Amino acid sequence: MACIILEVIIIILFGTLVQYDDETDAKLWHQEIANGSSNYDNDFYYRYPSFQDVHVMIFIGFGFLMTFLQRYGFSSVGFNFLIAAFALQWATLMQGFVHGMHGGKIHVGIESMINADFCTGSVLISFGAVLGKTSPVQLLVMSVIEVTLFAVNEFIVLSVLGAKDAGGSMTIHTFGAYFGLMVARVLYRPNLDKSKHKNCSVYHSDLFAMIGTIYLWMFWPSFNSAVTAHGDDQHRTAMNTYYSLAACTLATYGLSAVVAHDGKLDMVHIQNAALAGGVAVGTAGEMMLTPFGSMIVGFLAGTVSVLGFKFLSPILEEKLKIQDTCGVHNLHGMPGVLGAIVGAVTAALATKDVYGDGLVCLFLTSWESVPSAGFMAISLAVTLGIALLGGLITGFILKLPIYGAPPDTICFEDGIYWELPGEEGSHEELTTVRTPDEAEKLNA
Amino acid sequence: MACIILEVIIIILFGTLVQYDDETDAKLWHQEIANGSSNYDNDFYYRYPSFQDVHVMIFIGFGFLMTFLQRYGFSSVGFNFLIAAFALQWATLMQGFVHGMHGGKIHVGIESMINADFCTGSVLISFGAVLGKTSPVQLLVMSVIEVTLFAVNEFIVLSVLGAKDAGGSMTIHTFGAYFGLMVARVLYRPNLDKSKHKNCSVYHSDLFAMIGTIYLWMFWPSFNSAVTAHGDDQHRTAMNTYYSLAACTLATYGLSAVVAHDGKLDMVHIQNAALAGGVAVGTAGEMMLTPFGSMIVGFLAGTVSVLGFKFLSPILEEKLKIQDTCGVHNLHGMPGVLGAIVGAVTAALATKDVYGDGLVCLFLTSWESVPSAGFMAISLAVTLGIALLGGLITGFILKLPIYGAPPDTICFEDGIYWELPGEEGSHEELTTVRTPDEAEKLNA
Amino acid sequence: MACIILEVIIIILFGTLVQYDDETDAKLWHQEIANGSSNYDNDFYYRYPSFQDVHVMIFIGFGFLMTFLQRYGFSSVGFNFLIAAFALQWATLMQGFVHGMHGGKIHVGIESMINADFCTGSVLISFGAVLGKTSPVQLLVMSVIEVTLFAVNEFIVLSVLGAKDAGGSMTIHTFGAYFGLMVARVLYRPNLDKSKHKNCSVYHSDLFAMIGTIYLWMFWPSFNSAVTAHGDDQHRTAMNTYYSLAACTLATYGLSAVVAHDGKLDMVHIQNAALAGGVAVGTAGEMMLTPFGSMIVGFLAGTVSVLGFKFLSPILEEKLKIQDTCGVHNLHGMPGVLGAIVGAVTAALATKDVYGDGLVCLFLTSWESVPSAGFMAISLAVTLGIALLGGLITGFILKLPIYGAPPDTICFEDGIYWELPGEEGSHEELTTVRTPDEAEKLNA
Repeated sequence: MACIILEVIIIILFGTLVQYDDETDAKLWHQEIANGSSNYDNDFYYRYPSFQDVHVMIFIGFGFLMTFLQRYGFSSVGFNFLIAAFALQWATLMQGFVHGMHGGKIHVGIESMINADFCTGSVLISFGAVLGKTSPVQLLVMSVIEVTLFAVNEFIVLSVLGAKDAGGSMTIHTFGAYFGLMVARVLYRPNLDKSKHKNCSVYHSDLFAMIGTIYLWMFWPSFNSAVTAHGDDQHRTAMNTYYSLAACTLATYGLSAVVAHDGKLDMVHIQNAALAGGVAVGTAGEMMLTPFGSMIVGFLAGTVSVLGFKFLSPILEEKLKIQDTCGVHNLHGMPGVLGAIVGAVTAALATKDVYGDGLVCLFLTSWESVPSAGFMAISLAVTLGIALLGGLITGFILKLPIYGAPPDTICFEDGIYWELPGEEGSHEELTTVRTPDEAEKLNA
Repeated sequence: MACIILEVIIIILFGTLVQYDDETDAKLWHQEIANGSSNYDNDFYYRYPSFQDVHVMIFIGFGFLMTFLQRYGFSSVGFNFLIAAFALQWATLMQGFVHGMHGGKIHVGIESMINADFCTGSVLISFGAVLGKTSPVQLLVMSVIEVTLFAVNEFIVLSVLGAKDAGGSMTIHTFGAYFGLMVARVLYRPNLDKSKHKNCSVYHSDLFAMIGTIYLWMFWPSFNSAVTAHGDDQHRTAMNTYYSLAACTLATYGLSAVVAHDGKLDMVHIQNAALAGGVAVGTAGEMMLTPFGSMIVGFLAGTVSVLGFKFLSPILEEKLKIQDTCGVHNLHGMPGVLGAIVGAVTAALATKDVYGDGLVCLFLTSWESVPSAGFMAISLAVTLGIALLGGLITGFILKLPIYGAPPDTICFEDGIYWELPGEEGSHEELTTVRTPDEAEKLNA
Repeated sequence: MACIILEVIIIILFGTLVQYDDETDAKLWHQEIANGSSNYDNDFYYRYPSFQDVHVMIFIGFGFLMTFLQRYGFSSVGFNFLIAAFALQWATLMQGFVHGMHGGKIHVGIESMINADFCTGSVLISFGAVLGKTSPVQLLVMSVIEVTLFAVNEFIVLSVLGAKDAGGSMTIHTFGAYFGLMVARVLYRPNLDKSKHKNCSVYHSDLFAMIGTIYLWMFWPSFNSAVTAHGDDQHRTAMNTYYSLAACTLATYGLSAVVAHDGKLDMVHIQNAALAGGVAVGTAGEMMLTPFGSMIVGFLAGTVSVLGFKFLSPILEEKLKIQDTCGVHNLHGMPGVLGAIVGAVTAALATKDVYGDGLVCLFLTSWESVPSAGFMAISLAVTLGIALLGGLITGFILKLPIYGAPPDTICFEDGIYWELPGEEGSHEELTTVRTPDEAEKLNA
């Protein structure tokens, strides 16, 4: 029911506020054609393949990455689907508001579609932190707030401070991770170990999760390059990301075996840490980072991420009371911050000698004033501030006992929100874990 | 054996009739180059990414969507693969015949490849209606007939009546659904409840099916825009479809919880109804439907589809004796008809004021004579007529007891057509459900 | 640990040797812009979508194709991921060395990325032959050697002998298959039947494998056309491959039913033989093979491949002592040789009359001297020679007892290299099959 109300609101807002842009409107585009453009110049042909790769990352990548839990596959893929479909619409509105209207209207086209998917990605990162412990209504409420704050932060970082962050190390990953971690902190469940036996994987659920991992890994070059400038920028960003990921993967496998007691590989590391290289070149990827630099960054990101899973996550849970289901701090949080730092340093080192005429194009500025490391540092601080404060407030809103959150004993369990099929050859009775008033809340 | 004979026939026909078109023939294309074209103008670069997205929908999307049945995954993916690989070849021939030969030859290139995949999609929709109750030989026979009638209907609707239907609300979805439903009606099995325990899902089979759903959902914008005109048309079609699907998804989740007794979500709805938004903008998507209009259509489509699964499907089965395994009436039938109506209305409302010079381009006509709602209505009627009549005849042909159709007791069961592996830790004996003469028929 | 050392070496080499090419370097590209190029001319837009399709084949296609084994899914996907991420970096270096440096530097861009993925594909084919019987360290050592020899062979075939082989029938498939088969021969395990009960599939593992199959099948047109010349060449190559695969699929289904005792389909054939059509047009696909010719080749490839699985593989194992886990001889070996022969014949038949001005463009030569069948035959012989000799040496290197290879009793088992989750409702104890010194070797 919440879905329907939200959708009706969105549809009304779209009706009042949203318009085709120059490249999707029949009349306006044909005016451009009359002025000498070719249909082949339509940005559709230079952005749409990247958009579809990003789309796959959002819906398949994030969705299946979270299916590793043994009895939470329906919710992982299904709520991911729901939240993403909602957030991309809401993001179109919020980003349109904040980034500038055209005569009172929001203009939409392929770039707005990519940006909406990016914002959605941030929400899904936060979802990873609270996975298994929240109801769909809570997730929708979180999305409403997070998307709004995302748009505000993105505006401050990119437009006010003039930072560069094409792949969103700061705006997407750092923001989404720390927002989600703060929500998880506020929603801390001291008795979560009652559901502990369900907070783990089974053999096939880990294979489903690998589908998510591999798609995220493959298409991350498209993610980081999706909205960079055309030409060398987009080409270079994709390639830097590709090298960073490759180096990160080797570091992850190596370290995963080293930190284990018995030299065995841990699926959690492979599924997550191997991706940290993509996060960590989100800011610097479009710069002249070189393949060499990209690989060092990727290698560091993988290292930080595996060590985080092994040593930091238990501390976060025990000392800071942050129950981070998917370990988003290790995949998005620390690598995101690393990416912001790398971006600041790389930008500070940019010279006319290395970039040639590309300097102006990339930094949209004369070469004397590339964004200083200082501005990038301020951007990172702003991002962290808004994320943590926003997450704090959101956490308290979600704590209100009106959203049908699952009790401690039946977290990480699909049965509470989904009609489950019987199991072929199953030996445990599928206890349907719903009480009447929980059901009512779901319908709220 | 049937496969081999059919393939030999197809190869001979290709040898006699099929030629490279201007853009795939070395000599002809280099004549165009000599006349001032650039290699970058080759349509490959403006259609191939869309083609590959459509290809993924056909082989992964449809294939895995149907894996929801617990013991029919091999057949769902495997027969989908077989039928699709056959139908795309046969469709190239049939569409080539009907849409005009060039000096006695069929010309092939990226557009013929997309159109062949579209026709294949229609056959796979019909497959969904009869899933689990037909042998591969029956399916091949059905494909032969359906592809032929599809090409005829497409020719009448698009070329004779001049209707617009780029995403195939009518020609693909309505046609495929009602054709398949009529076949299912003729093949009605009164004792199908003997296989009832197999006509349902298990936990992991539903997750496999979600792979199909998500791919269909993500790439539907590519499907609807794959053959629209270059420039704003293709860009706008993709975006309209994207918004329609997003709105449809929210409506589906909301309604699925509302119509359930206990507020739980039903995987069948999520897997299918969330896609209805793509079907319903198949005709109007290339027009100036606006994001607002697209979302309303998507919302309606999701609503109709969930209600169809909940209330109409049981009636179809009990009263009309149509056993629609995948519920194609709810996903393709009703939303397809809705799409045709929306298309007719949107086309009727098209004005020079809104479309500018794009009007002529889109409707290939002077602005006084955009296809009237009347012509669109006739197109819909023709489509329904050919589909139902064709399905009726096909059903009776398939009823002949010569194709190795499965008996009522072992429908929805892979074991009859596939060598099955043993089960790890399985407790039920896998009864191999084949009798000698069934095997012979398979070899026929 | 081996991973980390290798990665550090690679990073140092990249730091010394690798540079952006003209299209990824900001300064150089903006010089081209200043000379009149457009950003839209950047090769990124004409190669990147194909690259991503190839990337999906390498990481999802090969990775999941090998998940058919019941308890080797983690290793299949995971080691595939590891080897591929390593090999693409190493291939960039080796191919850069051999194919020509620019002022002492290797230039990288989208074409080097595609070529590195191609080389990686060859290594993964060899992996298929030894799947389940090798440790990750062995696989990394194999990759180091194989990538190097691949680059040498590719240089001889393409640059010295001037053969055409855009889709790599010879350089990728024949090379990878016979290299791997020879390694498997040297690593022959007479007592492998102790692990026999694990060297088979279960129901869901076969479905995961179908994900790999279908992705390989769908994107093979992109594979074969990824590095062909722009324009008609790329367009034609994709289309020829598409028709070859379609015909191959029908032949595979038909023959699979015919060669079975009881008319049932065999998943092994469908998963593998249906792809042989892509292999077999790897050389001739860019030529004027015609759809007719492509389909004949595909039909033959499917036939050869199914018959190989049925009749030849048992002989290879019993008589020649080659334990070819995935049957790469049937999918890549014989169809690769077939493809080389078809390519030689098609090239020999090339005339100015058929190709027009495209002849010079395609064969980079005046029309009097298209590569003769003789040169193609020499290329095939060289490829086979280097593959077999290289595989022999590599096999003996891998036989050294220092890499933690699994004992005969626990081949095809993830538990030796991976932390395994418990099984939900599992009845067999998961014996952790590691001894202390095996663990140490893994850490080596």
